[in-house]
Amino acid sequence: MKKDIKKVVLAYSGGLDTSIILKWLGDEYGCEVVTFTADIGQNEDLAPIKEKALKLGIKEKNIFIEDLKEEFTKNYVFPMFRANAVYEGEYLLGTSIARPLIAKKLVEIAKQTGADAISHGATGKGNDQVRFELGAYALMPDIKVIAPWREWDLNSREKLLAYAKKNDIKIEQKKGKSPYSMDANLLHISYEGLILEDPNAAPEKDMWRWSVDPKDAPNESEIIEIEYKNGDPVALNGKALKPHEILDALNRLGAKHGIGRLDLVENRYVGMKSRGCYETPGGTIMLKAHRAIESLTLDSGAAHLKDEIMPKYAELIYNGFWFSPERLMLQALIDESQKHVNGVVRLELYKGNVIVLGRSSKTDSLFNVDFSTFEEDDVFDQKDADGFIKLSALRFIIAGKNGRKII
Amino acid sequence: MKKDIKKVVLAYSGGLDTSIILKWLGDEYGCEVVTFTADIGQNEDLAPIKEKALKLGIKEKNIFIEDLKEEFTKNYVFPMFRANAVYEGEYLLGTSIARPLIAKKLVEIAKQTGADAISHGATGKGNDQVRFELGAYALMPDIKVIAPWREWDLNSREKLLAYAKKNDIKIEQKKGKSPYSMDANLLHISYEGLILEDPNAAPEKDMWRWSVDPKDAPNESEIIEIEYKNGDPVALNGKALKPHEILDALNRLGAKHGIGRLDLVENRYVGMKSRGCYETPGGTIMLKAHRAIESLTLDSGAAHLKDEIMPKYAELIYNGFWFSPERLMLQALIDESQKHVNGVVRLELYKGNVIVLGRSSKTDSLFNVDFSTFEEDDVFDQKDADGFIKLSALRFIIAGKNGRKII
Amino acid sequence: MKKDIKKVVLAYSGGLDTSIILKWLGDEYGCEVVTFTADIGQNEDLAPIKEKALKLGIKEKNIFIEDLKEEFTKNYVFPMFRANAVYEGEYLLGTSIARPLIAKKLVEIAKQTGADAISHGATGKGNDQVRFELGAYALMPDIKVIAPWREWDLNSREKLLAYAKKNDIKIEQKKGKSPYSMDANLLHISYEGLILEDPNAAPEKDMWRWSVDPKDAPNESEIIEIEYKNGDPVALNGKALKPHEILDALNRLGAKHGIGRLDLVENRYVGMKSRGCYETPGGTIMLKAHRAIESLTLDSGAAHLKDEIMPKYAELIYNGFWFSPERLMLQALIDESQKHVNGVVRLELYKGNVIVLGRSSKTDSLFNVDFSTFEEDDVFDQKDADGFIKLSALRFIIAGKNGRKII
Amino acid sequence: MKKDIKKVVLAYSGGLDTSIILKWLGDEYGCEVVTFTADIGQNEDLAPIKEKALKLGIKEKNIFIEDLKEEFTKNYVFPMFRANAVYEGEYLLGTSIARPLIAKKLVEIAKQTGADAISHGATGKGNDQVRFELGAYALMPDIKVIAPWREWDLNSREKLLAYAKKNDIKIEQKKGKSPYSMDANLLHISYEGLILEDPNAAPEKDMWRWSVDPKDAPNESEIIEIEYKNGDPVALNGKALKPHEILDALNRLGAKHGIGRLDLVENRYVGMKSRGCYETPGGTIMLKAHRAIESLTLDSGAAHLKDEIMPKYAELIYNGFWFSPERLMLQALIDESQKHVNGVVRLELYKGNVIVLGRSSKTDSLFNVDFSTFEEDDVFDQKDADGFIKLSALRFIIAGKNGRKII
Repeated sequence: MKKDIKKVVLAYSGGLDTSIILKWLGDEYGCEVVTFTADIGQNEDLAPIKEKALKLGIKEKNIFIEDLKEEFTKNYVFPMFRANAVYEGEYLLGTSIARPLIAKKLVEIAKQTGADAISHGATGKGNDQVRFELGAYALMPDIKVIAPWREWDLNSREKLLAYAKKNDIKIEQKKGKSPYSMDANLLHISYEGLILEDPNAAPEKDMWRWSVDPKDAPNESEIIEIEYKNGDPVALNGKALKPHEILDALNRLGAKHGIGRLDLVENRYVGMKSRGCYETPGGTIMLKAHRAIESLTLDSGAAHLKDEIMPKYAELIYNGFWFSPERLMLQALIDESQKHVNGVVRLELYKGNVIVLGRSSKTDSLFNVDFSTFEEDDVFDQKDADGFIKLSALRFIIAGKNGRKII
Repeated sequence: MKKDIKKVVLAYSGGLDTSIILKWLGDEYGCEVVTFTADIGQNEDLAPIKEKALKLGIKEKNIFIEDLKEEFTKNYVFPMFRANAVYEGEYLLGTSIARPLIAKKLVEIAKQTGADAISHGATGKGNDQVRFELGAYALMPDIKVIAPWREWDLNSREKLLAYAKKNDIKIEQKKGKSPYSMDANLLHISYEGLILEDPNAAPEKDMWRWSVDPKDAPNESEIIEIEYKNGDPVALNGKALKPHEILDALNRLGAKHGIGRLDLVENRYVGMKSRGCYETPGGTIMLKAHRAIESLTLDSGAAHLKDEIMPKYAELIYNGFWFSPERLMLQALIDESQKHVNGVVRLELYKGNVIVLGRSSKTDSLFNVDFSTFEEDDVFDQKDADGFIKLSALRFIIAGKNGRKII
Repeated sequence: MKKDIKKVVLAYSGGLDTSIILKWLGDEYGCEVVTFTADIGQNEDLAPIKEKALKLGIKEKNIFIEDLKEEFTKNYVFPMFRANAVYEGEYLLGTSIARPLIAKKLVEIAKQTGADAISHGATGKGNDQVRFELGAYALMPDIKVIAPWREWDLNSREKLLAYAKKNDIKIEQKKGKSPYSMDANLLHISYEGLILEDPNAAPEKDMWRWSVDPKDAPNESEIIEIEYKNGDPVALNGKALKPHEILDALNRLGAKHGIGRLDLVENRYVGMKSRGCYETPGGTIMLKAHRAIESLTLDSGAAHLKDEIMPKYAELIYNGFWFSPERLMLQALIDESQKHVNGVVRLELYKGNVIVLGRSSKTDSLFNVDFSTFEEDDVFDQKDADGFIKLSALRFIIAGKNGRKII
Repeated sequence: MKKDIKKVVLAYSGGLDTSIILKWLGDEYGCEVVTFTADIGQNEDLAPIKEKALKLGIKEKNIFIEDLKEEFTKNYVFPMFRANAVYEGEYLLGTSIARPLIAKKLVEIAKQTGADAISHGATGKGNDQVRFELGAYALMPDIKVIAPWREWDLNSREKLLAYAKKNDIKIEQKKGKSPYSMDANLLHISYEGLILEDPNAAPEKDMWRWSVDPKDAPNESEIIEIEYKNGDPVALNGKALKPHEILDALNRLGAKHGIGRLDLVENRYVGMKSRGCYETPGGTIMLKAHRAIESLTLDSGAAHLKDEIMPKYAELIYNGFWFSPERLMLQALIDESQKHVNGVVRLELYKGNVIVLGRSSKTDSLFNVDFSTFEEDDVFDQKDADGFIKLSALRFIIAGKNGRKII
C-alpha cells in the first residue's frame, strides 16, 4: 500500500482514463474516492457521469457535479482578456486559464469532505499537472497530490485497456469520437497527438470540431456590436448578457465564420516543445474587440505599460501561476487601467477574419479629431513640436557634438 | 529673411506640397535648395521628378534620386521583423521604419553638398517630423532643420493652392488620385483623413489601393514556402531572392489574397490619437512566418525574452528612435537570438488569412516528439515532474503553512 | 502686454527669485497675483513670508501658506518608498516627489480663487518645470502656465539684481546663506552649481547643510527599530508616530551619523546631464529598512516583479509623471504587494553606514529555518531537487542533443 | 550498485565533505574518480590537495588542479559588473557567478578524460546544485550528475564523521577554522548557518573573515583611482593591471576600510528563504565606480534600459542560467552599451563608505556644463521647453478636457 491517504478528490471527466484512475486510486491507496466533475463549457452531457461514478462504486454523497461556466468566464476568462493576454505571440491560453479554477474547486471539496488528497488525470510531461498542483498547493498547502500518470506502470494504451477490462470499466466506443488528445471549455478546444506530432504536417481537415473551415464559411459577412464596461463585454448587439452567455454567443458566431483556429508549436513549462491546434472563436473576437475599445480609451502611457507587462502575465498563466502574488499584482495593475475602458465596438466577421468597423465611447473616448488634423486648434500649437523634438534629440546632439558616432 | 541658412536638402516627393516647400524655402530663406527623392518602393514613376525639380529652378547637380529598396529592406525592414515588432498590438510600423533611412540619406547628401540644413514636408502634429529630425540630429548634430508646416501660414488647402498658383507650380489632377493623406513604401501603404477622422466609421471600400478586399480574393487558396536564414527570409518557393525581391513578391501574393489590411486608432508620439488604415501584405505574411520558424528553433528563454522587450523596441521605432543607443542595444539582443533561426515555413494564403501549414529546420529544430509523447523516453523521467512541481510550489506551501491566504 | 491672464497663482518661496517673479507677473501680465507657500519640511521660518508678500502688494486674501508635511510624507514619500524607488541606481528622488504635490496645491488654489494661470520659478533647463507643469495640466487641463525663466530676459544674476533694485525688492544677505542652488523638503536637500559643475571635482566640505561628515560622526553607533505596517513605517523605537514625524526623526538620526549623502551625475529628462549632491538621511535609512522587512515577508515572485518594474516607476517620478495613468497602475501593483509587509527592522547607524541587525515579523515572516537547513524536514524532500533541476535543464539538454552549442 | 557510471569528475575542495564524497563515489558506484580543484581566489593553499587525493586512492593522472583566477575575473566577474548586477537590491552574486565556471571545467575534464559523470558537494536545498548542474547539462547534454547529498543517508554531522572514521579519512581540526558554512572566491566570501538561522539575530563580530569591522577601520580615508575601458577596470591608481590583479587589489583596499559587508535574507531559486552574510569588498567598490563612469558616458536611453533589464539578468545568474540563450542575449545588449564606458573614477574609502570624488572621461564624457547652466547657450533654447512640456502633457490635457479625472 502506498503512502497513507484517507480520502482523495479526483477531477473526474467520466472518460476512460479518469475512470481507470478512479479504480486505481482505490486499489493502490485503499482510500475513499470523491469525484468532482465540472461543466466548464466543454459541451458534453454530464448527466451520465453520476451514473458512471455510482457504478464504479463511488458513494452518492461523494459525487460532485458543478456548473462553473459563469464563474469561469467572469473570474478567469474576462480578467485575463483585460490584459490582452497572448502566449508566445499567438496562443490565447484556453486550457491554461481553466486549470486554476478546477484546482480551486478540488481543494474546496477536499476541505468540505475532509479529504487529504486530490488527484487528476494529467500526464507527467505536460503543463496541466503543473497548473493543477500549483493551484492546489497555493490554496491548501498541506494537500497531498496523487498524479497517477507519474506513478503507475499503465504507460501504454494496451496496459490501460487491459486494466479497464480486468476491472470491468466500460470502454465506450463513441461514434465519431476524436482520436486526438483534446481539451475543451467555454473558451476553447485543443488538439494534440497523431499527425500533429510532425510540426511540418498540416492538421487534417476533419480534426477541427468547433469551427467551420474558413473556406466553408458563409459568403456573407456578419456585423456585430460588443459593448464594454470596465474592460469586460457586457452586451452583444445591444442585448445585455451574462459573461458566459456572451462568450457562448461569440463562440457560435466565430465558429460559424471560421474564426479562431490556431496551429502552433509552443514551449511547455516543463522544457520541451509541443504542437497543438486550437479553436478559440469567441476569444479571438474578444481580443480584437478589446484592443479596439482600448485604442479609443487608454492613452499611450497606460496602453504601452499594459503591452510591456503582458508577456509576463501570459507566461504566468501558461505556467500555472494564477494563484501567485505576482499574478495578483499584475492583475491589480491591469484592472486599474480598465475603469475607462467603456464603449462599443462594431465588427465584421468573414471567413476567418475579424474586421473592426468602428469603435465609440460616449463617456471615455480620448480621440478628438480636432487635435490631429492639420488645421489650427486651441490645444496644440504646431510650433510646440519644435521644442518637443529639439529636447527629445538633445542627448543625441550633445553626443554628436562630442564626436560620438551612433553608427 | 529667416535665420541664416546657406543650403538646404529637401526630401522631395515631386508632389504639390513639397513643390511648394521647394519654392518657399528659396523665398523665405534665400538659400540654395538640394532635392532628394528616394525610390523606397512606393511604386511611383520617379522619372518626371527630375524634370519637375529642374523646372522649379533646382540645379541639375543638386537633384538626387536614389533607389533605396534594397537598403531599406535589408537594413531596416528585416532587422525589425527579427523582433516580431508590432506597435500597440497591431501596427507593423510601415511608415515608422522608412523615416530613419530618409533622414540618413538627407544627412549624407547634406555632408556631400556642404548643406547646413534639411527640410521635409511632414506636418507639425504627426510622428514623421519627429522621426526625420531625431534621425538627422543623431547623425549630424549641428544640422539645422526647416519644417515649413510648423513655420508658415499656409495652413489650409486654399492658401496652399493660392501659393502654388502665384508661383506657377503646376497642380496635377492625376486621374484616380486618392483624396486620402497617404504614405507608401515597399513595406506598406497608409491612409489618413476624411471619413477616417470618425473612428466609428468604416473606411470606404475604394480607399484601399494595394490589396483586394478579402471578399473579392480568389476562392482558391495558394500555398507558399519561405526559407529563413539567421532570422531573415532568403528564398521564396525554393528560389533564392534578394531581400527587396522577397518583400516585393510577398506583397503581390498578400495583396492578391486580401492579406494585411489594418484599421487602427493609434497613439501618436506627440500625444494625441489618430486613426489610420494600413495595408502591409508582405509584412503580415512575414510576421506569421517568422514566428513560426522561431517557434521551432528558439527555446522558451530566448522566445519569452524577445516577447518581453518587443513592445519597447516597437515603441522606439514608432517614436523615431531608430538611431539611439537603446535601439542598437535591443537590436544586439535580438540579433544574438537569430543565429539559430533557420528553416522553412509553409503557408496557405486565403481571403485575408495566413495559415501556417508546416515548419521545419534541418539544422536547428528543437522539436522532438520523443520528448513530448506520453510514452517513456530516455531524457525525461515523468517522476522528475514531481520534484519540479513541488519546488516550484514551495514558496506557496511555505506561505500557506504560515497562515497566509493567497485569495 | 502678454497673453490675456486674469489671475495667476505663484509658487512663492519668499526668496529673491520668486519675489522678482511676483513683481514681474504684475508688470508683464497686468494680472492679479496669488501666492502659495508650502511648508514641505524645508526647515525655513515661513512667518516672514506673509509680510513680504503683503509688502510686494499682494492682497491678504491672496496669500496662501500651508503646512504640507503630513500630506507630503503620507501620500507621496511613503507610497514611493513602498517601491524601493531609486533613479539611475542611486538617487532617492527627493526633489522629484515634492513637485507634484506643489502642482496639486497650485491648481486647487487656482480653482478656489478663480485663477486661470499658475507660475513657478523653475528654470528652462531643469526637471522641475516639467514636474510642475505636467502635474498642473493633468489636474486642470485648461490652466495656463507662466514660466518666467523661459520668457523673460533677466537671464543673468546682474539683470536680476538690477530688476530687484529698480522694483524695490529687498535683497537679503542672509548670513551663512549657501551660494549653491538648493532645494529642500522633508525628504532631502540638494545642491547644484559652482564647483559641482565640474564632475571631476569633489564638493567642498562646507557645502553640506544637513548631515555631518561621516568622519565627524559619533564614534559610538546607535541602534534603532522601525516598525512597518503594510509597507509603511508606523513606529520608531517602539513609539507610534505619524508619517512626517517618523521621517523627521529619521532625518535627525541619519544626519547625526553622516548617513545619506550622495554625489551624482544624472540624466535630466530634458536631455542633458547635470551634477547634483543630495542629503537624504531619513530616506536612506528607510530604503534599507524597507528592503529588509520585504526580504522577510515577500516571496521571490512578488519581490522580483517589484524590482523589475521599479526603474520605470522611478523614471516616471523623476520625469514628472506622478499624475499619469501608468504611475497609478504601477502603484496599484506595488500596493497590492504590501499588505503582508509587516514587522520590525533593527538597524545600526554608524558613520555613514546603515547596518541591518535583524528583521522579524510575527504575522508575515516567510522565513523558516526548518526548510533551509540540511537536515530532513517534512515539506522538502531533497530528492525533489533532482526533478526540479532536470526539468529546468531540459531545454538545454534537448538543444545539446540536437547538436546546438551554447558557447 | 547504483546506476552504471564509468568515470566521474568530482569538484574536490580537499575538505572533509568532498573527501567523504570521493570515497563514497567509489564505494557506491564502483567507478573511477577524477578530481578537479580550482584556485578561484578562495585564498587557500592548494598544495596539500594533491597529496590528499593521492592518499585517498586517486591516480595521479586523475588529479586536476587549475588556477582559474584570471578566467574567472575576466570572463565572468567583469561581464557581470558591466550590468551593475545586483540580486534583490543588495546581493552582488559572488557565489552565483563562480559556479558556471566550475561546471564548465568539470565538463571539459570529463570530455578530456572520457568521464560520463560529474559530482559535487552541494546540498539538496541550495542554489549551488542548480548552478552546477544547469551549467553541466547546457555544455554536455548527456552528462550524468551524481549529487551525493540528495542520494545518501549521511544526512547529519554524526553520520559523516562516522563514515570518515570508518574510511580512514583524516578529519583536520584546523585552528581557527570557521564553524559557518562558507564559500569563497576572488569576488567574495559568504557565511550561512548557526546564529544566522535566526534572521533577527545579528552576526557575531568574529564571523567575518576578510574585512575589518567599519568601526576598526583606519581613521584616515584613502583615495584611489580606477580607470575603465569598455566598461571594465584596466588600471588602479594609474597602474595597468590584469583583471584578477585589480580585483585582488580592490579586495585588499576594501577589506582594509571595512567595505562590502552585507547581511541578507534572500529568496533561493528552490523556493525557500535563507539568511546569508557576505563580504564583497572589491566588488562593492567596482559597482560604485562603474555606475560613476557610466553616469558620465551613457545617455539616459542606454542607462535606463540597462537598469530595466538588470533585475532579470541578475536573477538568471542567481538561478544558474549563465549558459542560457537569454543570458547571452542580455549580455549582447549590455556589451553593446559599454564601448563608450571609458574614463577614470576617483573614490574615497572610509570606514565602510565608498565615496565618489570625481569622474572624468577624455574621450566619452557626455557632460557639458554649458548645456545645463541657466545662462544662454547655442544648443538649448529654453523656450524649447515650452513645446516639450506641452506635448508631453498633451494626452493629459486631452483627457482632462474630455472630463476624465486622473485622481
